[in-house]
Amino acid sequence: MNSNPPSEAVFSGIGRRAGPPAITKLMQVALETPGLLSLAAGFTDNSSLPVTFISEAVRALGASANDAEHLQYGTNAGRPALRMALAARLAGQDAPSVTTPDQSRITALRDATFMTNGSQQALYLAIQTLCEPGDIVLVDRPSYFVFLELLRGLGVEARSMPVDKDENLDLPALKSQLNALIARGERERLKAVYFVSYFSNPSGRTLTTEEKQGLAATLRETGCVIPVMEDAAYRELGFDPASANAVPGILGDEVWEGFPLLYTGTLTKPFATGLKVGYGVCPDTRWRSAMLHVKGHHDFGSGNFAQAILEHALLTGALDQQLSVLRRIYSKKRDALHATLISAGLADLGWSWRLPQGGLYLWLKGPAGLDTGFDSTFCRACLAEGVLYVPGELCFGDNPPGNTVRLSYGVLSPEALAEAGARFVRAARKING
Amino acid sequence: MNSNPPSEAVFSGIGRRAGPPAITKLMQVALETPGLLSLAAGFTDNSSLPVTFISEAVRALGASANDAEHLQYGTNAGRPALRMALAARLAGQDAPSVTTPDQSRITALRDATFMTNGSQQALYLAIQTLCEPGDIVLVDRPSYFVFLELLRGLGVEARSMPVDKDENLDLPALKSQLNALIARGERERLKAVYFVSYFSNPSGRTLTTEEKQGLAATLRETGCVIPVMEDAAYRELGFDPASANAVPGILGDEVWEGFPLLYTGTLTKPFATGLKVGYGVCPDTRWRSAMLHVKGHHDFGSGNFAQAILEHALLTGALDQQLSVLRRIYSKKRDALHATLISAGLADLGWSWRLPQGGLYLWLKGPAGLDTGFDSTFCRACLAEGVLYVPGELCFGDNPPGNTVRLSYGVLSPEALAEAGARFVRAARKING
Repeated sequence: MNSNPPSEAVFSGIGRRAGPPAITKLMQVALETPGLLSLAAGFTDNSSLPVTFISEAVRALGASANDAEHLQYGTNAGRPALRMALAARLAGQDAPSVTTPDQSRITALRDATFMTNGSQQALYLAIQTLCEPGDIVLVDRPSYFVFLELLRGLGVEARSMPVDKDENLDLPALKSQLNALIARGERERLKAVYFVSYFSNPSGRTLTTEEKQGLAATLRETGCVIPVMEDAAYRELGFDPASANAVPGILGDEVWEGFPLLYTGTLTKPFATGLKVGYGVCPDTRWRSAMLHVKGHHDFGSGNFAQAILEHALLTGALDQQLSVLRRIYSKKRDALHATLISAGLADLGWSWRLPQGGLYLWLKGPAGLDTGFDSTFCRACLAEGVLYVPGELCFGDNPPGNTVRLSYGVLSPEALAEAGARFVRAARKING
Repeated sequence: MNSNPPSEAVFSGIGRRAGPPAITKLMQVALETPGLLSLAAGFTDNSSLPVTFISEAVRALGASANDAEHLQYGTNAGRPALRMALAARLAGQDAPSVTTPDQSRITALRDATFMTNGSQQALYLAIQTLCEPGDIVLVDRPSYFVFLELLRGLGVEARSMPVDKDENLDLPALKSQLNALIARGERERLKAVYFVSYFSNPSGRTLTTEEKQGLAATLRETGCVIPVMEDAAYRELGFDPASANAVPGILGDEVWEGFPLLYTGTLTKPFATGLKVGYGVCPDTRWRSAMLHVKGHHDFGSGNFAQAILEHALLTGALDQQLSVLRRIYSKKRDALHATLISAGLADLGWSWRLPQGGLYLWLKGPAGLDTGFDSTFCRACLAEGVLYVPGELCFGDNPPGNTVRLSYGVLSPEALAEAGARFVRAARKING
């Protein structure tokens, strides 16, 4: 009884599965390589951060006679006026031709909305409330790698939805996949579908209305009316401002009737990421309640102060102003990186990519057989040239191809992007021999 | 295959266990009862919120030439300079007689520190990484009710550590309890110990050095060298500023050598709760890594902007200035509530309480046999008088006594506290007949 037992913490499954995120390795490499230009980090433009607006917003909030409520605890679901402004914005994007807003729809959307620590927390709550270890979630191909890590951390299996050679959803193949899954007796473990629908991280693609409707129909036909998670983090970062309205989100298309739906977004990626204000919109009362109850245990409400600033930014139009600045900046940055890759001859080396119309990423496919992983010759050649990227293999739920790469143009200046792009092509040329 | 299946989300264990938090019911009652004075909410003083300092801090951060990094994403563990300032503060509190700070100890504490969305998130990460449903955590008696709800949400069983008639830890009884637990074969399921050590929520008590050391010895003697969680949320809210230094925390007392330790705290409860900046300090590398990896999945880092403001508040001395304001305010508020309860004759009605020397709560024991639960006659009498409290039964891991009450003096003005206290005593008098 008196002997000293081993004193190490005994972990839960979650504790045991916790592995260092891929991004840690990327940051480590970046720190250890002086002069490195990183096309890896998914950070945002620094030069345009709304420093002055935020100072003035804080002063204005302090000057209003509201008992300094912006500095006090808020509620678990978040600020009602912010949620109302978000709901009105979303309703407008989903039905741009409607001239008289439907107030009851907006109120219903507000009630379905909850504010989170970045949209990441909404994704986490969704999976926590739905999945046990061993469960299955369908994901897009490629998909957001932090979400894939989140699934692994919770012991959940990601299965990619098949795509055709143009990287569009392959609906007949999806139907076969679902039927095979059902035949194997896995239907009970299938708990949700997840996809990044606008200017995706990493592919830069926007799902078309037809693809989304086809997905809904395929799920319904195969008896898989399961929770659907649409990650719309980049919806407002299209270079053409009208693009946010071009394809309705899952909450704005009646083909999703009957599916439990969660639509997630962020107010701070297109504004000032340090404020970290995201949200989920979930009209399914039971699911939303479950997520909010778990959120109550995480933190009983996200920071009220940051929410108050974003509410001010939405209501004063500052968010829209910032968005128009960012659209110009990111489209220039995309051009700078793309032009260098072209002029330095990357396409001639067997690489291909689509020119994204928004978001922060170029998604490249290298020559067949190329390995772009962390420990590959190609990766070492890039580091030797002084440029870093995200190996595409991290972005797949299963069967990763070895030859894809994500390049981010969010952080570096156009000049630095040109230099980084030139380095990347030099590395590619070396490997091609 | 084509039939429409039930479309409801199928929940995980966490999703199924998610129940509305007690605080929801309290807020609901408060909203539905006009003129109600709430002694229930654990909110903080509004009149003293540092509006001007925060405006100026944000302006100063914007004016510094640091590429507006305070508005950009931060890191998962949080701002290094903030963690360093916190580490130095903690080292000073734990060893107030040391005149030359031990820099290597401070650096080690900084490395052990990670910033969270309020200290609540650190508590959640700790339990997520340690416990599976059915596991056991020892808790203080009474304990923090949101932590008890968090345990229930994760399917974890709370067991109260026994106290004597003065509400001090009863170490011989604890030893028997642990030996009985071991004899029943439950030792493997016992994963952690949790307590609120300074000016506790709800009891207002501070654990003495002797109690803490006795706890360590008892755990060690019974072969239970398990993870220990010290919740120090109210450490700096003692009315005597020296009280923060009077009892060392678990990280500053060598009796805890060999135990995996987590010390949690908050920078914003004693400053501006809307900024929501908490932290955990965990020198156990494996446990801390596991928690940080899970945090990466929750949100990959708490809001950098709020952290930058708190860093500024720590480094400029504004936090200490605010603390000295708050100590005066809360001690006056405590006096106002206590004086009313005394002068209105509550003690004569068979009620007793200890005068807390810090924190935000009076913890009352009513006459034996009284029921203070939500649906009790007493609770209804209080609502009829227009005053709300937290039923003490929420604050127990097991075997709640029916006759305890938590009164918060954080929010109301001294005048309103006097009125609320008078209402409470009127209700108590009615019930006593």
